[in-house]
Order: sequence, then structure tokens, then C-alpha cells
Amino acid sequence: MNYNFASRIGGLKPSAIREILKVTQDPSVISFAAGNPAPEAFPVKEMKQIADELFDERAAYALQYGVSEGYAPLRELTAARLKEKYNIGTPDDDLIILSGGQQVMDLTAKCFLNEGDTILVEDPSFIGSLNCFRSYGAHLVGIPMEPDGIDVDALERALKTEKNVKLMYLIPTFQNPTGRVMSLAKRRRVLELSKRYDVPIIEDNPYYELRYSGEYVPTLKSLDTDGRVIYAGSYSKVLSPGIRLGFACANKEVISKLVVVKQVSDVHTNLFFQMIAAEYLSRYSLDEHIAQVCAIYREKRDAMADALNKYCADTLHFESPEGGLFLWCDIRSGRDGRDLCTISGKKGVAAVPGIAFAIDPESTVPSIRLNFSLSTFEQIDRGCRLLGEAARELG
Amino acid sequence: MNYNFASRIGGLKPSAIREILKVTQDPSVISFAAGNPAPEAFPVKEMKQIADELFDERAAYALQYGVSEGYAPLRELTAARLKEKYNIGTPDDDLIILSGGQQVMDLTAKCFLNEGDTILVEDPSFIGSLNCFRSYGAHLVGIPMEPDGIDVDALERALKTEKNVKLMYLIPTFQNPTGRVMSLAKRRRVLELSKRYDVPIIEDNPYYELRYSGEYVPTLKSLDTDGRVIYAGSYSKVLSPGIRLGFACANKEVISKLVVVKQVSDVHTNLFFQMIAAEYLSRYSLDEHIAQVCAIYREKRDAMADALNKYCADTLHFESPEGGLFLWCDIRSGRDGRDLCTISGKKGVAAVPGIAFAIDPESTVPSIRLNFSLSTFEQIDRGCRLLGEAARELG
Repeated sequence: MNYNFASRIGGLKPSAIREILKVTQDPSVISFAAGNPAPEAFPVKEMKQIADELFDERAAYALQYGVSEGYAPLRELTAARLKEKYNIGTPDDDLIILSGGQQVMDLTAKCFLNEGDTILVEDPSFIGSLNCFRSYGAHLVGIPMEPDGIDVDALERALKTEKNVKLMYLIPTFQNPTGRVMSLAKRRRVLELSKRYDVPIIEDNPYYELRYSGEYVPTLKSLDTDGRVIYAGSYSKVLSPGIRLGFACANKEVISKLVVVKQVSDVHTNLFFQMIAAEYLSRYSLDEHIAQVCAIYREKRDAMADALNKYCADTLHFESPEGGLFLWCDIRSGRDGRDLCTISGKKGVAAVPGIAFAIDPESTVPSIRLNFSLSTFEQIDRGCRLLGEAARELG
Repeated sequence: MNYNFASRIGGLKPSAIREILKVTQDPSVISFAAGNPAPEAFPVKEMKQIADELFDERAAYALQYGVSEGYAPLRELTAARLKEKYNIGTPDDDLIILSGGQQVMDLTAKCFLNEGDTILVEDPSFIGSLNCFRSYGAHLVGIPMEPDGIDVDALERALKTEKNVKLMYLIPTFQNPTGRVMSLAKRRRVLELSKRYDVPIIEDNPYYELRYSGEYVPTLKSLDTDGRVIYAGSYSKVLSPGIRLGFACANKEVISKLVVVKQVSDVHTNLFFQMIAAEYLSRYSLDEHIAQVCAIYREKRDAMADALNKYCADTLHFESPEGGLFLWCDIRSGRDGRDLCTISGKKGVAAVPGIAFAIDPESTVPSIRLNFSLSTFEQIDRGCRLLGEAARELG
């Protein structure tokens, strides 16, 4: 039969990153394409111990239906840690456990965006979120990125001139794909703009604790006094992404709406792993674990920066990021990133062309995104050497 | 701040069942309200063994990001079993793993229903699906239920007269809440109507294998030759609901759309438990496990039917279902089910009033839904005795 699909999904295509991810399942390809954490960063031994005990002592509960808000001890431990370490959350806020950070975007978009409504986003930005907003028929308006974060003047112009602006979507810290950090001054201005134009903000913050140098900058949420920020957090980068655990912290009124749409979306998030995460947080120091993970990633970031300086100084320009998982490289010749990725792919190195993160799919983006967390040091060196060869061939 | 939520979620309220579920966390209450499987039906020992091996041997894969289609071996094993046992699936079909049966409804609704589009549903029907369709701003039209399933003449009238009918949502086997089975003759007519009016069908079939008496009736999907049926299956009732594993089997074009919206919804379903389920299906006989589960539930169904006959024959009328998890009781006096549930609740027995499953929330539904899978035999007897007292008090 001929299917008459809803108009909202008409323009949606599979994510370029996902398609590349499939190609890179070829083990001979060096992948700088994905956003995967390093497997050595998963606390496997600890999770196994907890899982064993859950199966022995609490299986009837852990395998049964749970509530849509999430497992209460995990909600409480998560909220307490956010408050104590980062001053995130007020007495008017609440917290819901969701199936990864992606689901925060999905359910928040569903709650706020009518078809045709406008959402302001950094340009470039994370493709998974952009496609999520597109899947609700939203109108995306890109605001340029500067070295210290979003162009706040351009943001204000858009707030003044665009119709039906319902949300701003920002990744203030270790932005994906650029790796940049929004300055504190800009954070304060963004919050002022949110207040003046009465537009709430999604603060997507999955990389916040993956800082390898420089100083912590306060989150938007910690500076938010009147419920303007919907904070999206994730355990993907600090425990494991495959378990799909994220959370939203926002005003109680917003969380109550998220609970309702969570119920009709997938009822609740895998309860067994919510319990594993809660037990992990109770028994072990997540801070110490994160410090170990950061030590690994710091070395990998530096190894990739060194290799790019060694092999690609004449062809690529980059700023080494203070954290996160990505290096954003500009192609000095101005050629489009797709051309470079095509050549490098043939040499056995996968990267993501900048166009994947652009708001306008028809634009030219002379950049590529490189992930440094997943590869070994040997792969980083060899991959950068091949990338340099590809960049010189591209000219 | 004042939040300006999307119009589609304006009318959504937390599910009555979920709210009741919370009340029944009081352990002194006998709950006939939930739809929970019995914990003794979870294959805990087998899952633990597999989990141990995964942590030891394949943790780097099992805890990493996966693909949105689902873990390939689980997709293949699920599709093969559906085909071999129930003749479900054609060469034009594909299968995606989703986070429980609920997510099949969510993503299918997102792919097919523009705001204001019509979906035809059985009346009464499963509240979780009804609220899901409402959350996309759909127009729900209820079609009455008869003892042998949906009123097919009324269904045809609706197909003729309603505007923009985009989907039919049916639970043909052990319908929730009525427990009824659609006859084979009606199934054939429903498929003819789907063809004549060019409207695809969601066949929601979570209870199919929980049959305690009578003969298997072929699924709509197994009778579907040209891709009209989107089949929603679940491992919740045969393995465990807390792990959130379900699947959709449908034409490749439909599945490709579901994959795209799955990507932007939650990326993929918890990979670790997808792998546990795949290993379980490889190593053990799910058929034998289901036979054991059915033996438990058959006894419980019979115990509840006996107790209702003993304590409530003068006040409640019911037909013992051939499978599923629910007994649907009509109140002989014609009083609304809410009144009975209020009185029985005070006596320590929770049930769900029929209104929870009605399409028109303003109607009167002189019925209640009782779950028999979760309670012990002692609770079933005592709960029905208290329910009988409540029904006599109601008058």
C-alpha cells in the first residue's frame, strides 16, 4: 500500500553520523567519526557486582514495571550531586530520569514546539538534537558560533525579529561539534535575553565533567533563578552510553509535563540499570571515576593535537578544546569538509564533515569534526597521518 | 516564568492507571489495578547467568552506543520466531527493536498522525495508547466492542464518514481492558476494510502468547499480504516489563521511518538487555518458559473467576477470558465503576474503573478491570470477598 506519513517527518533523513557509524563497523577503519566514549571508561567490574546482587536480592522489583518519573533513589542521588557540586536545582525544580540525553530533547520539544514554531540553535550544533526538533516540524534558526560561544548579538536580533520563538537550544560547555565553551559574561547575557524575551532555554550539558584543562564555568542552570533553564544531563559519557540513562532538571511545572509525555512514550526507562546507577552512586565515588576517565581523555586529546600539528599543520587549523570528546578542524583551503572526508575515508579514516551539523543543509562548511576518545594512541597517530595525506591531496 | 506549552499536550493528564499504581505501592493494599506480570514469571536465574558472561566477555560492546534498528541478533531471532510460529512477516517486512510496546504506538503515531487526523480505536481500549495518540493532537473515534471483538459495521461507518482517518488501532487478542478475542471472520473483514478505505492498522499484540484455553486465532499481521498491518509485539509479558523491550514488524518503508524517529527519540534501546534477550532466545526455549508462565496465570485466572462467582455473582457479571491478564466486570446495578473502585479502595482493594479506558471521558462506564496475574491466591480470594462487600454497599 501507499503510506501517507505525517508531514512533520517528511523532510527527515537518517543522521549522517549514524550512517557513518555503520560504515565504521568495518574494524579496519580508524574512526574519528563517532562520539563514543572509550570502553575503558566503563566501570564494568562495579556494575557486574551490583547486577549480581540485584538479580539475587531484588529481581522481582528490578525487572517489574517502574514509575515514569524514574527510580526514586537515582533521582535523589542525581539531584543531590548536581546541587552539591554545581549548584544546579532550586526548591522549585524537580528531576526526571530519561532514556539518555537525547530523550530530554525529544520530550521537551514535544512539550513546547507546535509545528512551525521557531527554535534558536547554535550553528553548527549537534545533529541529533537538530533532527529531533525538525521531527516536530519546528523552524530552526541558526545563530553563529564565536570562539567564546554563541554570537549573543545575533541571538538578540533573532529574538527580536523571528516569529513564535519558543525555545533556545544551547550546548554552552564543550559544544558539539566545535568543542568551545561559552564565556561567563555571555552566559549572563543569554539569561538576560531569556528573561527579556520570555523564551526558555534547553541547556544540553553531556560533556560538562569531561574537563581536562582550564577552569569550570558555571552552568546556565546554576545562574538561573526563575525556572528559565531546562537542564539536560547524561550518564552516557561518565558511566556508559549503551545503558541509555539521562535526566532533565527543570521547574516542577515543566517536569510534570515531561512525566506525562514520558508515560505515553515508553512508560519508563530500563529500571534495572537505573538501579545499577543508583547503587553505583551510593557505593563508589563518581568523582574519582570521572577523574580517571579525564586522565585517559586528556592524554588522547593531547595525542591528537600533537599528531595534527605534526601531520596537518599546513592543511588544517584547530584550537585544542579544554574538554569534551571532539576536535573541530577548519580546512585552510576552504574546501568543503565532505570532500576531505571522502578522500580520507578511502584511506581508512572516518571523520564527520561539518555540513552534518549545519542548520542550512545547502551551505558549504570547510570543517570536519574529529573524535579523540575512542581510538588508541597508535590509531590516533596513524589516522592523523592519513588525514594529512588526504588534506594535501584535496589541496 | 510562564510556560507556553505546545497545544498538543494541553489536554493530557497523567494516566489514571499510573496514579493508581502509585497508591498501590502501599503494601497493605491488594492490587487488582495494575497490568503487571507476576515476578515468578521472570527468568531471573537465566538472565543473571547471561549478564555475568556479558560483563566478563563483551562489556565493551554491550555498554557502548548501538544502532537505532536494534541489536541485530535480537532482531533476527525475533523475526525468525514470529515467522516460524505465527507466520508473521513477509519478505517486504522488516523489524525494529523498541523500548517496549508503548514505543511502537508512540513512534507510529508520530510517523502517521498530523494534528487533527483521525484514528479509529476500540472503545474501551488501552489508556496508554489512547493518551499517546492524544499527545499528537489526534482525533480519537471510538468503535464499540462486541463479545467477538470490534463492531465491524460501526467501524465501516466510521471509515466512510470520518475525515482524515489515518490509522486504526486494534488489540485483537485478549483486548485490554475487555479480554475479548476478535473472531477470525471479523479479522478478515477488518483487513478488507483496511484495503477498501486504504487505512493501515496498528495491531497491538502484547498478550497473544498468554493463552490459557481455547484455540489460537491468527493475527491480523499473518493474514496481511500487502503491508497494511504494523505489528506491535513485546517481551514485557513473556520475559520482563522493567527491561523495556518491544518490537515492531511492518513493511520496510514503515520501519525505515520508525528507525529515523527512533534515532531522534532515544538513539537506541538499552543494548545490554537487548543482548540478554538475544542470548536467552538462543540458549533456552521461550516456548517452554511461556508454557510455565501460562500454567501460573491459568490457575490465577480460574481462582479469580471462582472467587468472583463465590462473592460477587449477585453484583458483578463477567466472562472468563481465554488469556491475557485482565477480567472485565460489568456492574449489574449499572452504577459507574468509579463509585465501586472508591468504596473497594477504602476496603483495601484497588481496581481500575472502566472510565479510564473510555474514549469519551464524560461518559458513564458501569464496569471495572481486574488484573489477576500479580496477586497471590490468598489475595485473590480475600480481594474478591472485599470487592463483593463493596459492590453490595454500592447497591
